[in-house]
Amino acid sequence: MNIILGIDPGSRLTGYGVVRQQGGQFHYVASGCIRLGTDDFPERLLRIFNGISEIIAQTQPTIFAIEQVFMARNPDSALKLGQARGAAIVAAKNAGLEVHEYSARQVKQAVVGSGAADKAQVQHMIRHLLKLSASPQADAADALAVALCHGHTQQSLIAMAGQARKTVRGRLR
Amino acid sequence: MNIILGIDPGSRLTGYGVVRQQGGQFHYVASGCIRLGTDDFPERLLRIFNGISEIIAQTQPTIFAIEQVFMARNPDSALKLGQARGAAIVAAKNAGLEVHEYSARQVKQAVVGSGAADKAQVQHMIRHLLKLSASPQADAADALAVALCHGHTQQSLIAMAGQARKTVRGRLR
Repeated sequence: MNIILGIDPGSRLTGYGVVRQQGGQFHYVASGCIRLGTDDFPERLLRIFNGISEIIAQTQPTIFAIEQVFMARNPDSALKLGQARGAAIVAAKNAGLEVHEYSARQVKQAVVGSGAADKAQVQHMIRHLLKLSASPQADAADALAVALCHGHTQQSLIAMAGQARKTVRGRLR
Repeated sequence: MNIILGIDPGSRLTGYGVVRQQGGQFHYVASGCIRLGTDDFPERLLRIFNGISEIIAQTQPTIFAIEQVFMARNPDSALKLGQARGAAIVAAKNAGLEVHEYSARQVKQAVVGSGAADKAQVQHMIRHLLKLSASPQADAADALAVALCHGHTQQSLIAMAGQARKTVRGRLR
């Protein structure tokens, strides 16, 4: 069993989502977003760090998955987003978690089946895959999607490894 | 008395410098740099966080001053540098320190008297101002310069406030 904490970092809101993976099954544990308010930037970074540390203490994840940022917009927003990611990753590493990074494209591909899916499609699939009674809020859905992406990717790797073993065994017979 | 921790953040090396300010006098306490090695990025961020937390525990600063990044190069390096800054600032806020930010130009202006000074000039002035027997290494010198910049800026503000009070008093007489 794995408990995966997914994070969608931002400099105003940081979404989080926690899922429990048991074999091929995923179960919803928690999700939401840390509102960073309008305080000065150092104060917001502390909120991310404290918020994520608290979620880790409450949900005891074993894996931390975060959206990789890949954008060629402007250096100023890249710097702000980098600071928010830095605060989030430090909270995870400080709690001894493994950190995995996935691009937005990989996350959408894993959850919706298309790297070009929009936010509404991600929300819809998250609701479906985790059997939720309502669509989670957009930032929380993105964070849950990152967590599921990690689970799926690991599963495919395990499946591929199993396939490779079978092939080798087949050849040896 | 103030103990000021200055930080020059980087994604490969993070310089630090600690000075004690007593009235108009500055005394050298410690300086050096945290080498981040070639580990994966999350591991390097943890090194920054742990390194700075340790320096804070050892030198007990009351103020944290960090170089503001202001550059229009590429978003990828801005993101990496942002993450390193995020990890550093979180360590300071987590220890309850006040965080102040200064641009490279302000730092050079305060220490050398010219916003366009080069690294060698900064090293030379740091050696002179802190009465060191040898020039500190470049990253450490930059970090000490950030700490001195904070001290100088606060001093000028105090001097200005004093001046303003005198003027008001003068007018009231």
